[in-house]
Order: sequence, then structure tokens, then C-alpha cells
Amino acid sequence: MPGTPTLRTPFLIVNPKAYLGGAETLQLALLTEELAAHYDIDVIFTAQHAYLVEVAKHTTRLLITAQHMDAITPGRGMGHTLPEALVEAGAKAVVLNHAEFPLTLAQLDATMRRAEEVGMATIVCADTERQCRAVAQLGPTVMICEPTASIGTGTMDAGDYIERTTRAVKEVDPSILVIQAAGVTTGADITRVLRLGADGSGGTSGIVAAPDWRVVLVDMLSALAAFRDAPTH
Amino acid sequence: MPGTPTLRTPFLIVNPKAYLGGAETLQLALLTEELAAHYDIDVIFTAQHAYLVEVAKHTTRLLITAQHMDAITPGRGMGHTLPEALVEAGAKAVVLNHAEFPLTLAQLDATMRRAEEVGMATIVCADTERQCRAVAQLGPTVMICEPTASIGTGTMDAGDYIERTTRAVKEVDPSILVIQAAGVTTGADITRVLRLGADGSGGTSGIVAAPDWRVVLVDMLSALAAFRDAPTH
Amino acid sequence: MPGTPTLRTPFLIVNPKAYLGGAETLQLALLTEELAAHYDIDVIFTAQHAYLVEVAKHTTRLLITAQHMDAITPGRGMGHTLPEALVEAGAKAVVLNHAEFPLTLAQLDATMRRAEEVGMATIVCADTERQCRAVAQLGPTVMICEPTASIGTGTMDAGDYIERTTRAVKEVDPSILVIQAAGVTTGADITRVLRLGADGSGGTSGIVAAPDWRVVLVDMLSALAAFRDAPTH
Amino acid sequence: MPGTPTLRTPFLIVNPKAYLGGAETLQLALLTEELAAHYDIDVIFTAQHAYLVEVAKHTTRLLITAQHMDAITPGRGMGHTLPEALVEAGAKAVVLNHAEFPLTLAQLDATMRRAEEVGMATIVCADTERQCRAVAQLGPTVMICEPTASIGTGTMDAGDYIERTTRAVKEVDPSILVIQAAGVTTGADITRVLRLGADGSGGTSGIVAAPDWRVVLVDMLSALAAFRDAPTH
Repeated sequence: MPGTPTLRTPFLIVNPKAYLGGAETLQLALLTEELAAHYDIDVIFTAQHAYLVEVAKHTTRLLITAQHMDAITPGRGMGHTLPEALVEAGAKAVVLNHAEFPLTLAQLDATMRRAEEVGMATIVCADTERQCRAVAQLGPTVMICEPTASIGTGTMDAGDYIERTTRAVKEVDPSILVIQAAGVTTGADITRVLRLGADGSGGTSGIVAAPDWRVVLVDMLSALAAFRDAPTH
Repeated sequence: MPGTPTLRTPFLIVNPKAYLGGAETLQLALLTEELAAHYDIDVIFTAQHAYLVEVAKHTTRLLITAQHMDAITPGRGMGHTLPEALVEAGAKAVVLNHAEFPLTLAQLDATMRRAEEVGMATIVCADTERQCRAVAQLGPTVMICEPTASIGTGTMDAGDYIERTTRAVKEVDPSILVIQAAGVTTGADITRVLRLGADGSGGTSGIVAAPDWRVVLVDMLSALAAFRDAPTH
Repeated sequence: MPGTPTLRTPFLIVNPKAYLGGAETLQLALLTEELAAHYDIDVIFTAQHAYLVEVAKHTTRLLITAQHMDAITPGRGMGHTLPEALVEAGAKAVVLNHAEFPLTLAQLDATMRRAEEVGMATIVCADTERQCRAVAQLGPTVMICEPTASIGTGTMDAGDYIERTTRAVKEVDPSILVIQAAGVTTGADITRVLRLGADGSGGTSGIVAAPDWRVVLVDMLSALAAFRDAPTH
Repeated sequence: MPGTPTLRTPFLIVNPKAYLGGAETLQLALLTEELAAHYDIDVIFTAQHAYLVEVAKHTTRLLITAQHMDAITPGRGMGHTLPEALVEAGAKAVVLNHAEFPLTLAQLDATMRRAEEVGMATIVCADTERQCRAVAQLGPTVMICEPTASIGTGTMDAGDYIERTTRAVKEVDPSILVIQAAGVTTGADITRVLRLGADGSGGTSGIVAAPDWRVVLVDMLSALAAFRDAPTH
């Protein structure tokens, strides 16, 4: 996979889904970029397809990431998203198989292969431990292990989900980076998931719905930087 | 539906689907705009979501049209396309229920209502005469009547499909504009469908796969202008 | 459509969905048959595909109805339901486009045409008034107008949904029979929807979850018989 | 998984999909049972849901198998297939994720867990080597490794697909039984796939479209018996 982007760990994911308008998305991207530079932390930043061009044009450090794409090749495919179009818009990665956009196993595999062809990193979601192991077999760059029932709740898993699924992925392929972000809303939450083995964390509603984006991003990025600098504490 | 865009008939649709890269799409849009101005013909021009911003920024006369969108409202909806995002990118209309992206009846209805809320025109596809009548009941701005089996063949329907489905739509609601474009590749094809009652025509492969875009666009636009100026001949 | 079954109005629908085992379904069918004979009321009775043979073998008066089928013809179609298989099992009708199994417009049309080919009546669901008008254009035998949000709530629509959607269907095609059953749990509820124009009513949870099936079926069937015998009261 | 059925290897799969009517399906089942007894070979026999009861009633040796089911529990789920209904009809196993009915990874996992709850064996299909490894992580009883492009062609893979995917599955979990049946139409084809590591084989069109079912079944079953009795030759 020559050209596939790489990420330094631990990293942040900022995933505004469909919460923000284009101007707000750009504003969040610029703020994230400023703070990511300050803390020297890599960031996966997703955006609606229609916003990608503007975010890519005005930032340089973020891993610009599409929220979905299809396995089509240039030609037909009305209404479907051509991977090459996202690359041309500036995307370097794509999230696939999110609980809000589940794919068949065959579609997921085909779309991941298209991502490789166009040089995009793949960030693939999975729910149960078995699903995490299954997705790990498909060769993603990054995985988001996320118990579907927790999405958007602001409450982290109280059991052993985080260490169990992180370990499961690494057993299948230790090179896959694992994001644990379900219910994460603070820097302390991020420190907890990193201690349990995750390579990255972040969020959606925990960030976009915060009263002050800067406050929450500083909280999260400083937790990531502190763990990077002293992971054993 | 205040703010819904209007179209003067007869009009052209240029629908490059996923055939073109972003730079090529913009080039086709600029050429279409130049020729549309010359012939004073309205044009529906579609693009991949990621290209909409650029096409909208550099053109003024085209009805910038998305190739799909979802019925979501701001919030969750990872991987789905927010109507407000398309509007902010410059889209004024959206194609729905294309044979390559069929929707459930409930989704189609919900997405059309979202389009009304954000002031976008809806261009809805249907196959059989019954499906055309059904879609007409949902209140689209424009319909594309298209026998699914003919898409991309370059061969027009040899029977009475064109007049029959156009009449069916108008019987349900005479204000709906009807596009007949299946198999259309020349100005003569366009003249034929306009004589049979269509309000507009155009194409995908008939345009993007032509050896010289200017030649085919001139052929089509001059046919539209000639029909407009002397519809009975 | 020679051979399509007919229904005398007003009629009952008993739709156990996936609530009951096969033995319970057969028991409910036999009880329904006994009471339907007593009140001389026609009944649409649905069952899981795997139960159809047994229900059809042991009853004679019920309109045995499948809960879904696919538009496939004999051949491939692993996991999909062949219309001919349902007919051979004894089904005379099929429910399509239920909110729990929504179909694309093209699939719905194709499946209805297959139903005609094999001589099955179609009972097609729709939600909003626009969707009701759209489905009516496809030529169903019976429609179930049902606001999706009310399914399984035991609460009837408090506004004008019932008369408005019934009238909408009849305006498109007066020969279509209309079921209004959302939130219906008693004979009084059935009387109300019949007075508002419906041709039939019945339910799922209102029947299968009732403490005594006989009590609720007698209540519903006697309301239907009373309305039939004196519709103006 | 107490109660999950077991299979002696090598075994046959007879999968008539939607090719046959109910009476023909029963006839094929009875013939298969007679010949399976003669050769003492275990057989997976699938049928349309509506035919399961009759096939189960009239046979004793076949592993009666549904062609799909849904992850629903008793309750709602109009049009979906309740696992308990299939068990009550006599099914002991279910095929999932066939190329003609692909499932999302989350649905597939959930349906496999439901199968375990009701004591059914799972026979899960996969296409590429990566998909085979992914499905193996979900814990199926049996897998059908099948290059989607070969289905129904009557032509076997000319490369190393068979040994490569069989080995991939066994590496993940050696207890999973592997069917290789794409393009298999003769006993010689079956011998070839068994020699390459498969535990079972069989077919659809290779059997149901054969001019004489008895001839093709004898050919296949005798090849299975010969391999069982002298696997190294």
C-alpha cells in the first residue's frame, strides 16, 4: 500500500458526522489544526463529502477523512461516491462500516480494496469482539471498536469491552491501530482508554456539543500528549 | 415551497454520474454554461458531492444538482449526506431514486420533504408507467421517466414508452416537468422526445463518452432551442 | 387478474407477525376460523412462511396470507421467497411494504406484478397520505394505511389520518379496499374506523397479546358484523 | 452450543435454491435420502421456508437447512423469518450470507448468535480469502467458500482458490468444516475439491438442472464414499 497515510500514536479523532454546517466544520477544523500543532498530536478529522474540499484547502496537518465511500470505479454509479473524487477533494482516509452505515462483508472488503488502490487509509468500525476480529482480517489501517448500544450516550463501557476488543484486534494483526471512543467526553476518559491499550480516541457529540470546543479539545489533546510523554503513569 | 428553483422548458440535463474527475467535471460545467448562455437554454447539471462546491463557485446559470441525498437532519448520520450541506455547497436540486440508487417509498417521500424544507428542487426517477404515476403523487419538481433496462445502452425505446409515461405523469399532476433521456445521444433524439411531450432531455454516456463534448452539446442545445422557437415543426 | 381472491366487506385482518410459534399460530387460526364462520365475516390471516402449509391444510375460510415475498422467478435467489412456493403452500395473498420490511418502489412494483402472475391478492402498506396515493397507483387489492409512528402503540391516531388517507386511496382507485388498524385493540375501535370509511380492520398485538384471544376476536368480529348489518348506526 | 447438529465428513450439500416447486423439492429430498443411506453419507439439504415442514416430515437422515433467517426474536418483524419458526418446522441448520443475500457484518454476527440460541448449525458463505478469514472469526459450523463470479457457471476455479481459502479458514479455526462447491457438477469435481482439502461439496444447478437427478447424485455420493474409504488415492 504505497502512499497510505500513517499516524503517530496516540492520536485524536474528531468526527462531526452531520452535526455541523460547512462554515462551522471549517471553523472546527482550523481550531483543531491550531491545537494539534501546539500539542504535536496527529488528528483524524472527518467531514461531509461536500465540505472536504474547503477543509483540505485550509488545513495541512489533519488527516482529512471521508465519512463513507462506495466501491465503484469511474463510470456509472449515480448517487454513489467515487473514491477518486474524494482523493481529488483532498481526503486521505475514509471511515467504513459505521453502525449508522453498516456494510455487507463483501461491500466492505471491496471498498477497502478500492481505498488501497487510490492510496487512502481505512478506518473501519466494528461492534462485538467477534466483529472486531472479523474486520481485523480484512486489513484495515485503523479500527474503531465501538459497542453500538453506547454510541452518542456519553457513557463509557463499564466492563472489559475496551481491553478485550483492543487485544482481539492486535492478536489478529498487531499493526492495526485501535480507536476506543464510545462514550468518551473528557481528557480523563481518553487517558483511561489509552491505558487500556487503545492507540487513539476522540468523539463526536462529546466535542461538537461541548459548550466551548477549545476547552474540550485542549482537555483531550493535553491528555494525549501527557500519555505520549509518560505512558506508564 | 418558497425558493424552489424553476426551469424554463425545454431544458437540458447533463448528468456525468461518476464518469469524470473533479477537474473534468468543472471543465464540462464551464463548457455547458458557455453554450447554455449562447442558446439561452436552462440546464440541470449534476456532480459528485465532493465536486459541488467548485462547480457552484465557477458557474452562475446551471441548476447545480446533487446526485443523491439522505433524509437526515443535522446530528447523527455518519456516512449519510445532509441536505443542508449540499445547499451550503451550492446545490439547488437533487436527483432521487435513480435505478442505480433505488429508495424505499418511505425514504423517497421523507427525502423529498427534506428537499422542500431546504428549498431544493427534486428530480425523481421512475421506471414503469405505474411507478411514474406513483412518484408523481409524491410531488416532485421534475421526473425522469426511464426504462431501467435501457440505461446506458444508447438505444431509445422503440415502443410508446415516452408518450405513455409522459402523459401518465401529467395526468396525475400537469405541473411536473418530465425528462425523457434514456438512450438519447443526439439533437435529433432530443427533438423526438420533445415532440412526444417531454419537457427536457439530455444524458450521461451520450455526452461524457462523446469524442468532442462541444459538438454533442451544440447538437443537443441547438435542437432544444429550435424546438423552443418552433415547437410545432 | 383472474383468480385473485375477493373479500366481502367489512373484513378482519389477524396478523400475528413473528409473535407466535407454529402450534400457537395454528390454534389462533382455528379459533379465528370458528368465529369468522359464526359471524360470517371474511378474514385475512397471516403467518410466517414456515407455518403456511399447516394453517392452509387445517382451515378453509381464511384468506391465508404471507407476510412478505420476493419478485424472483424460479431459479436462483438463495434466501429469497419464491411466490410460487407460497401459492403451493396455500397462500392466496401477500402483505408487502410493511414498515418493518420497506421495499423500493421498483421492487414493490415488480413483486405486485409477480403476485398477479401467480394469482395472489396484494395487501400493501403505506404511511403518509402521499405514500398512500403513490401505492394506490400501483394497483393493490387491499391497502393498509398506517402511520408508522403508531405501530404497536395501542393508541389510535387522534387527528384526521384515517378519513384523509382512506379518501386519498379511493380518489386514486375506488376499487382498492382500505384497512385502518393502527392502534386498534377493541370492537369499538373497529366500529370507529369503519364509520370513517375503512373497509377492514384488525391487528397484531391487540389480538395476540390479549389475555383471551376468544374475547378479543368476538369483540372485533361482532363489531364488524354489527356494522355490516347496520352501517349507518 | 448444546444440540448443534454435527456432520460426518466428507458430506454432500444439495441446495435447490428457488429452482423447484414444493412437490419436486420433496421428491428430490426423498431420492437424496435414499441414496445418502445407501452410501452412508451425511447430506445438507436446503429448501424454501414454505417447504421445510413437508421435507422434515418425510425424511430422517437429511440435515434440513433453511436458506436464510433473520436475527429477530419473537414479537415484531413483519416479513422477517423467526429462527424459532424454522426450528419448529424441522430445520436444524441455516445458510447465511450467500452472495444472493449478503448480510452486513453486524446482522451476520447477530443471526449466528440467534442460531446458537435455538440450536441450529450455521453454514456461512464467503467470497475472497479475506472474507473467508473474517467469517471464520464469527464461529460458523460450516463455511461455503465460493468466488461470487463463479456461481452458477458450471466452471470451477482454475487457480489456487480452493486450497488457499480452505487453508485460510482452517488457520483461523480448524474445527470449521469447509464446503467448496463453485462450479462443481460431477463426482470427479467433488473428488478434486476433497483432495484439495474441502470437507464437503455439492451444488445447485449442477444437480437440479441435471437431466437425471439419480445419475448425478449417485455420481457425487459415490465419489464422496470413495474418498471417505480411501482418502489418499
